[in-house]
Amino acid sequence: MLWTIISLVVAALAIGVAAYFYKWVQALPVEEEKIRNIGQLIRDGAFTFLKREYRILAIFVAIVSVLVLLVFPSPIWKGNIGENLLAAITYIAGAALSGLAGYVGISIATLANMRSASAAKRGLVPSYMAGFRGGAVMGMAVVSIALAAAALIQLITGNADFVMSFSFGASSLALFAKAGGGIFTKTADIAADLTGKVELGIPEDDPRNPAVIADNVGDNVGDVAGMGADLFDSQIASLAAAMVIAAPLNKIEIVFCYSALGLLASIIGVLIARVGASGDPGKALNTGTLLTCGIFTVLTLIATLITPEFDIRIWGATFLGMMVGVIIGFTSDYFTGDDKKPVEKVAEACKSGPAFTILSGFSYGLVSVLPSIVGIGIAALGAYKLVEPLGQGYPMLGISIASIGMLSIVGMIISNDAYGPIVDNARGLAEMGELGDDVLDITDKLDAAGNTAKAITKGFAIGAAGLTVIALLGAFQEIVESVTGEIISFNLMDPLVFFGTLVGAAIPSIFSAMLMLGVNRNSQAMVEEIHKQFDTIEGLKEGKPGVMPDYNKCIDIATVGAIKELIPAGLVSIIITLVVGFVGGVQAMGGYLAGNIVTGLFLALLMSNAGGLWDNAKKYIESGNFGGKGSNAHKSAVIGDTVGDPFKDTAGPSINTQITVVSLVASITATLFATFSLFG
Amino acid sequence: MLWTIISLVVAALAIGVAAYFYKWVQALPVEEEKIRNIGQLIRDGAFTFLKREYRILAIFVAIVSVLVLLVFPSPIWKGNIGENLLAAITYIAGAALSGLAGYVGISIATLANMRSASAAKRGLVPSYMAGFRGGAVMGMAVVSIALAAAALIQLITGNADFVMSFSFGASSLALFAKAGGGIFTKTADIAADLTGKVELGIPEDDPRNPAVIADNVGDNVGDVAGMGADLFDSQIASLAAAMVIAAPLNKIEIVFCYSALGLLASIIGVLIARVGASGDPGKALNTGTLLTCGIFTVLTLIATLITPEFDIRIWGATFLGMMVGVIIGFTSDYFTGDDKKPVEKVAEACKSGPAFTILSGFSYGLVSVLPSIVGIGIAALGAYKLVEPLGQGYPMLGISIASIGMLSIVGMIISNDAYGPIVDNARGLAEMGELGDDVLDITDKLDAAGNTAKAITKGFAIGAAGLTVIALLGAFQEIVESVTGEIISFNLMDPLVFFGTLVGAAIPSIFSAMLMLGVNRNSQAMVEEIHKQFDTIEGLKEGKPGVMPDYNKCIDIATVGAIKELIPAGLVSIIITLVVGFVGGVQAMGGYLAGNIVTGLFLALLMSNAGGLWDNAKKYIESGNFGGKGSNAHKSAVIGDTVGDPFKDTAGPSINTQITVVSLVASITATLFATFSLFG
Repeated sequence: MLWTIISLVVAALAIGVAAYFYKWVQALPVEEEKIRNIGQLIRDGAFTFLKREYRILAIFVAIVSVLVLLVFPSPIWKGNIGENLLAAITYIAGAALSGLAGYVGISIATLANMRSASAAKRGLVPSYMAGFRGGAVMGMAVVSIALAAAALIQLITGNADFVMSFSFGASSLALFAKAGGGIFTKTADIAADLTGKVELGIPEDDPRNPAVIADNVGDNVGDVAGMGADLFDSQIASLAAAMVIAAPLNKIEIVFCYSALGLLASIIGVLIARVGASGDPGKALNTGTLLTCGIFTVLTLIATLITPEFDIRIWGATFLGMMVGVIIGFTSDYFTGDDKKPVEKVAEACKSGPAFTILSGFSYGLVSVLPSIVGIGIAALGAYKLVEPLGQGYPMLGISIASIGMLSIVGMIISNDAYGPIVDNARGLAEMGELGDDVLDITDKLDAAGNTAKAITKGFAIGAAGLTVIALLGAFQEIVESVTGEIISFNLMDPLVFFGTLVGAAIPSIFSAMLMLGVNRNSQAMVEEIHKQFDTIEGLKEGKPGVMPDYNKCIDIATVGAIKELIPAGLVSIIITLVVGFVGGVQAMGGYLAGNIVTGLFLALLMSNAGGLWDNAKKYIESGNFGGKGSNAHKSAVIGDTVGDPFKDTAGPSINTQITVVSLVASITATLFATFSLFG
Repeated sequence: MLWTIISLVVAALAIGVAAYFYKWVQALPVEEEKIRNIGQLIRDGAFTFLKREYRILAIFVAIVSVLVLLVFPSPIWKGNIGENLLAAITYIAGAALSGLAGYVGISIATLANMRSASAAKRGLVPSYMAGFRGGAVMGMAVVSIALAAAALIQLITGNADFVMSFSFGASSLALFAKAGGGIFTKTADIAADLTGKVELGIPEDDPRNPAVIADNVGDNVGDVAGMGADLFDSQIASLAAAMVIAAPLNKIEIVFCYSALGLLASIIGVLIARVGASGDPGKALNTGTLLTCGIFTVLTLIATLITPEFDIRIWGATFLGMMVGVIIGFTSDYFTGDDKKPVEKVAEACKSGPAFTILSGFSYGLVSVLPSIVGIGIAALGAYKLVEPLGQGYPMLGISIASIGMLSIVGMIISNDAYGPIVDNARGLAEMGELGDDVLDITDKLDAAGNTAKAITKGFAIGAAGLTVIALLGAFQEIVESVTGEIISFNLMDPLVFFGTLVGAAIPSIFSAMLMLGVNRNSQAMVEEIHKQFDTIEGLKEGKPGVMPDYNKCIDIATVGAIKELIPAGLVSIIITLVVGFVGGVQAMGGYLAGNIVTGLFLALLMSNAGGLWDNAKKYIESGNFGGKGSNAHKSAVIGDTVGDPFKDTAGPSINTQITVVSLVASITATLFATFSLFG
């Protein structure tokens, strides 16, 4: 129990750090009234969206919590009503705390953006610190809430199943938050770019553009709140899977030990992260990440060596997981970095027109899948084999511990990731607040660093989700075996398993298609609205002083559109999962989860990397290569970037959550279709 | 043995029909000297490419045949040298006959194209007949060669393993023929379109364009020879898998029965296919397909009922396979047909710019995967369950018989498919031969019918490949079990299986990326060459009489480029397969094949359907919608079509062959890594 309690202590410490950073950021001055006003518009827009989204999701959560009450851990007509009640409560708590994490994130991000913009007048370091510490509030809050919740549930109930229902609550919120936020942000981004940059040739973030505030709101609701919910979900799902697998082996302590030390390492990393006045903020972010990895390695090694119950083989699994995370991160960096060959080649292809931009970027995206997916495979295989000698039941523990290792530094990852949209917003505020070119240079530099860091952290997030869902597959097997009392295997030569695999493979595909079609529809609607405003509001195009566009109209289109689209996309995955379970039973479900994981990882990696690649190819050209801004190559690159936007910020990252949710739905409903199914 | 001999008789009959059609087409007049000259250029270009390609492939086949000699059916140092010699000989025969099929196809297609063009002056019916009967030569030749070879090998050796090595020979040629032809055709097509239609605004097939002959050559080497090799490969692979599985059950006769009757049905279908003078040629093609399906159903049902050894359940499996083929075909038709919602929506999205064209087309492509992949899953599951009551070993027979059913009408499918490039060429010849607008109207109509039929036949081809490789997975298991004497299962919870699944899933991705990057590189080089010719050859752009571009230069660029690119793409898949086998053993290989099948099908369906969708969205706009030709929507649609070209004609259809080859490589080398592997 020692490490469970230490986990609570470290979580409390992290909350303390978060609170300290929050106050620190809040105390920074924002002298410019214009920035305060625009910043307030962004803040209001973000909270408006969040409230409307949460209101819808509350209904969804309420309905599902009744279903959980009816069927989990065992059908209420067969089992113990008290346990089901507890499961429903933890489910609601998971959803609520996931929502809270998003709320905290928006709250700090929309304070930090103004302060980072304003601080840029005083130089790169203060602006960077405002952005980074703002991000760190989110990082610390998300991880500490997840860890504290898992530890508390373990202490109070002593039953890892309830962490599973808690995780399901967090996931079902994350699924919609990520998808909804992703649709919102890209709707606004694409519409703003197409009408502003492409049609009128006005700069990004120009205040004449009616979509500009919606675009900045989008950064917050998509990248901050959505991403926070996503990683909250990954973190708690990996804890839940590891705990379910560790429970029968009496190894829960090791799960908490490594998680607590991971958070501690992140706290240290966040506190000592600095950038020199003439330093490279991108390097600073990456150095912080690597430093955190190092601290985690040393701390866990020491803890393992001094604790007689901990086996060094299990430590090996967590170390392997972390290392593979780093490798995947750097693979993403290779395929999306603007000093590397793929970006250069795609930028060069832009010279021959947009079709070549798309084809070459998409092709490199396809290539980028191999190293990452083989890395995940090696991590899973290695962790399994490493821990296998410890006896039956241990191999799957190895995989789940590898995912804990990969997610160990998630506190640092989220901090880096939330930094991105904050400084992106700061850039927008600096532009709209007319702070001048010197300040814009600084915010541009900080923004670019955010993009580099993002490639690596995204690689981490996808890799970790991959290992987590493999572990969840193990947890699913564990639950089914405990229900049926039989040893289960999923033999690919069993036609039900193969059938499930095929159907599962198609889910991420239809899910991401629905999100992208949603973005397509909404941004076309928003483009229409912008054209209308330009046509009807006199003097707007010309920038006549005092003439303002109707920002709220665009925010409203993005909000209503995103909320309308997110429900069907999320529901389809859940409903097909239930259909497959009740038609094909446990066997089909095993294959279904595997198929879903495989194409899910494939599509997530493809879309994230291709999207990042197009984005940076555009930036590469903008920095003066192949004709620079305004050239034909640039026009092609902008089209590539527009295609890449929903790839990398809507569909790609949402797939993570989709595969996690589907795995959890399978585990939660396993008792049902283990007892009844058409063919199973 | 009865049906094995009947197979030979039906094959001979089909060869007779092919020979009759060949003579019939050859006897048609080509009065216009200009068409004869240009037609000869195309014919020469196609044969030049074929010869150069075959020369390289001969070296490859020679090397691999030595490997086959060393290891198959069992390592030569352990087994029977006579058997290995036979395997090597059948391997070479498979490759040679696949090459022959391609040769026959090119030979007839480059005669039929001129005759179809010339016949268009006399009306739609004669032109259609020239195109369709030209295609039918290919269809009859391919299927009869495959069936006769399988029957002969069975009669002479009595050992289905040698059909496996024959099939491997056919596949290894097909892999390169499809990939090489696919790269050639799209290199020329894209370069011709971009410089001609987009930059200069001159019509398709304008003789001023230096790439125009290369484009027409590409239709032949890619769509005729490549597609013929591909379907020859699918046909023989499905026979091989079914025979290996049927042999221990003593059910080989039923395999030959259904295959022979399928060919007979195709012969009847081809002979009675007609179009009325005012009729719709697209409908005629589809009616022919459905008619063939009906004849096949009736004939096989009668044969099954009158033969006491044939069980009606097995007939059910073949019927199910055929039905699912039809359903997948019509699904493809829905997602790519220009009178259906997806094409209309994508065409509408073109109004908002090329990024929306790409995003919406890609998204619908993603959606289109679900019904087809679920269809394949249902066919496999249904066939398995239907045949399961017959006893052990039968279920996999059910799946392989379902794939025989889906491929039963392949003779008709190839006829329809080869019709496409022939009338496409005829259109080009009519344009270049200045036959006038009335003739062009007819050839346009015939060309459009080819595209509609193509969507359906492509669906069939992918579906059949899917079922075939599932059956090959069964054959692989069969071979491993006979080597090791143990019952094998591929449990997804075994980390080696899961590792294999992940790696296998990445193979189609990297394979198709390499092909598309090849097209990208080559067509950029060709665009450069075309610009050079326009700049240096005086009067070319203006169309001064007597001034001709250097067509051969472009043919040469496409030839050299395609041959350079096809080898690495093909080798990578084969080498990674061997590495996975020797590292992870039989278990990893089972997962690897499954992963490869799943993402292979996924990508093939996505790319074929998205590509067809963009193509038809462009045609939809060209027929006067959303602004028609020359509008902004049209420009976006052209970009979408260019992206779709290598999707649907290079990468998408090559993946079929790639998954078949990989499955066969696994079966051929199974004895090796069953005895040695690092972790297995």
